[in-house]
Amino acid sequence: MLAELISIGDELLIGQTINTNAAWLGQELSLMGIRVKWVSTISDGESDILDAFDLAFKRADLIIVTGGLGPTKDDITKHTLVKYFNTRLVMNQVVLDKVEQFFKKRGREILEVNRLQAALPESCQVLINNHGTASGMWFEKDNKILLSMPGVPYEMKGIMNDYGFEKIKSFFNVQGLYHKTLLTTGIGESFLAKELSDWEVELEKEGLSLAYLPSPGMVKLRVSSYVGVSEKEKVGRYLNQVKDRFPAYVYGWNEDTLAKVVSDLALKYKLKLGTVESCTGGGVANEIVSIPGSSAYFEGSLVTYSYDLKTKLANVNPKTLEVCGAVSEETVIEMAVGGKKFLDVDFCVSISGIAGPDGGTEDKPVGTVWMAIAHSDGVETKKIKLGDNRQRNIQMTIFAALNFLRLTILEKIV
Amino acid sequence: MLAELISIGDELLIGQTINTNAAWLGQELSLMGIRVKWVSTISDGESDILDAFDLAFKRADLIIVTGGLGPTKDDITKHTLVKYFNTRLVMNQVVLDKVEQFFKKRGREILEVNRLQAALPESCQVLINNHGTASGMWFEKDNKILLSMPGVPYEMKGIMNDYGFEKIKSFFNVQGLYHKTLLTTGIGESFLAKELSDWEVELEKEGLSLAYLPSPGMVKLRVSSYVGVSEKEKVGRYLNQVKDRFPAYVYGWNEDTLAKVVSDLALKYKLKLGTVESCTGGGVANEIVSIPGSSAYFEGSLVTYSYDLKTKLANVNPKTLEVCGAVSEETVIEMAVGGKKFLDVDFCVSISGIAGPDGGTEDKPVGTVWMAIAHSDGVETKKIKLGDNRQRNIQMTIFAALNFLRLTILEKIV
Repeated sequence: MLAELISIGDELLIGQTINTNAAWLGQELSLMGIRVKWVSTISDGESDILDAFDLAFKRADLIIVTGGLGPTKDDITKHTLVKYFNTRLVMNQVVLDKVEQFFKKRGREILEVNRLQAALPESCQVLINNHGTASGMWFEKDNKILLSMPGVPYEMKGIMNDYGFEKIKSFFNVQGLYHKTLLTTGIGESFLAKELSDWEVELEKEGLSLAYLPSPGMVKLRVSSYVGVSEKEKVGRYLNQVKDRFPAYVYGWNEDTLAKVVSDLALKYKLKLGTVESCTGGGVANEIVSIPGSSAYFEGSLVTYSYDLKTKLANVNPKTLEVCGAVSEETVIEMAVGGKKFLDVDFCVSISGIAGPDGGTEDKPVGTVWMAIAHSDGVETKKIKLGDNRQRNIQMTIFAALNFLRLTILEKIV
Repeated sequence: MLAELISIGDELLIGQTINTNAAWLGQELSLMGIRVKWVSTISDGESDILDAFDLAFKRADLIIVTGGLGPTKDDITKHTLVKYFNTRLVMNQVVLDKVEQFFKKRGREILEVNRLQAALPESCQVLINNHGTASGMWFEKDNKILLSMPGVPYEMKGIMNDYGFEKIKSFFNVQGLYHKTLLTTGIGESFLAKELSDWEVELEKEGLSLAYLPSPGMVKLRVSSYVGVSEKEKVGRYLNQVKDRFPAYVYGWNEDTLAKVVSDLALKYKLKLGTVESCTGGGVANEIVSIPGSSAYFEGSLVTYSYDLKTKLANVNPKTLEVCGAVSEETVIEMAVGGKKFLDVDFCVSISGIAGPDGGTEDKPVGTVWMAIAHSDGVETKKIKLGDNRQRNIQMTIFAALNFLRLTILEKIV
């Protein structure tokens, strides 16, 4: 049972919008045991859409189409569906009432184009949208399904969660793909692959498949079974062998983020956390508060971007700044210690670096970052060297700081 | 002249990695005047890869393949290319030297699998990778090009910028697509479309095409000319008509971000900025420092997540917190005024809200956010009502706060 995702929209092709819909659907369908084998991104042109439908019906059993259902003229998916399935539009009263309510509730004037969103293909089953005005449309053909969804991620996800996935589950008798991912940091892909080569051979003998997924600062190891969830234990056993072999490098599983792992530690050991940030400008704090319930352990942060604020807020000695500079071990130590005291927390991370593209010197080139963690027993420090891309440097620093915090908590508390 | 992007990797299909490579290539190729008409994402399976090459050579002139060039076993793109182009691998001494240098410089042990990355198809032109170990490969067939690139975004972008785009430009005599995008906020897609319907008809008569691109908090209007950059003036003229009609709703052009627009204002009018953030946890500050050179106008922030820190750092009266609550107009006013004084800035934004999923009450449901901006003439406040998705609420609040700051600077200073 194979699935194809068709994403419609010129904005995707010219890269003005990143295709997060396909990623999300891929994740959810995989978890249900449905194998997504193709994602086709095409333009808002009728002939391209028709060609894509033809090809998809040839090779896939389930086709999920996203995009092109808005009220404006460039949205042609609905009319193309009418043509492809040789049907006609009929006004759906239930949907019309919903659309009118939607506008009324928000105190916005309803337009004829909005009303027309309730005119839907006669031959489809309508999946009501409780989050917006474009309905989902479920078409059956030769025992295969084409499901058309709005392109706004929030609405698409809402309809899929409300009914889409349930309908797919009950229509198809799906074989369960199962996969689990181990998250590592601090170890290179090819080093891991060499160390694990015997293990990988064994894994493949057992019918499991392995993928290395490197991304900035980390390598994910995904083991999959096409037999399904019945091999959950076997998949887990193999990945645990890796975890036991490289305990310091493994920070989590599946969709874990470092912020979530750190948050779980803080909750478990009743620790208060805070940060004093310069080049990351509150990025570490922002990651931590993205986790629901973070007010239980996160107190707050000092974003001391200027020299003055480093002194005023984190009590850094102006002499230290003058002699050693803002990006130095001495300064991050004072920032962390001052911040710990001021914020009244158990662990305080401080960061100061040169994110670039300007501001580097021969001694301290762009990409030089110092960080420190103050805790009740003292201070740990760490220096990292990054490249010259500002955004990437900030992102990698946030990641490194969270991992440094995780390792320090594990060492000092657990 | 049409292009197809082929992204290879199971991790993309199951949504473990979002396909940012396709978005970036789509952007860059569009700017060069090359129309990307298809993005095909496929698995690491040989037959899928061969099928995708066949289809792409049928419909496109330029094919850019990303992914599957790593040193591990699941990376099969290179071997599949050898089969497709009926060639063989030969060791490339220049690349081998590069790879060995790469490991030496980083003090990492080189493995045989890394050395083998220098074995490359005989019939291709090699595009040296100065950012990693997997080379780019340029194949010609029937006056069409297939270019294979590593999947790591940083390396792919590096090779494309170093040589890839230049080679494409000189090989193809491309007709220049031109497009420009106007960015609006505070106005709905269908309202805009209704107001602009006559304008849109005229635009189409002139051979230009229009797309509405809604995303959280904004609607982008993109006007394209397939004639090319010679219609730059015409495209600009039409979009300026929209700008003149809705001046308060237009915040920028093309890839502008609100943070960039605010930064430009701060630079131009020599304003110092700061923030006092609760539910956004430093997210506004993080957006501002993502702009290079932000130290010229950004002083820092107080992330006052706890009640205590609101009082201690931003001098909020404990009585105010007790009587009105942390999420109230009174509290954000005190936060902004206290923050302005403490951070010694010209404009200080404060934010306090209930991001969810918990913490809502009947009076103040999840999604209630108050914000204030203190400036030399007083304080402005704003309340927004959002939904119940934490990540989305934080993202929308950051966006709204930056826009509020932009409008306040325009009103008070410009």
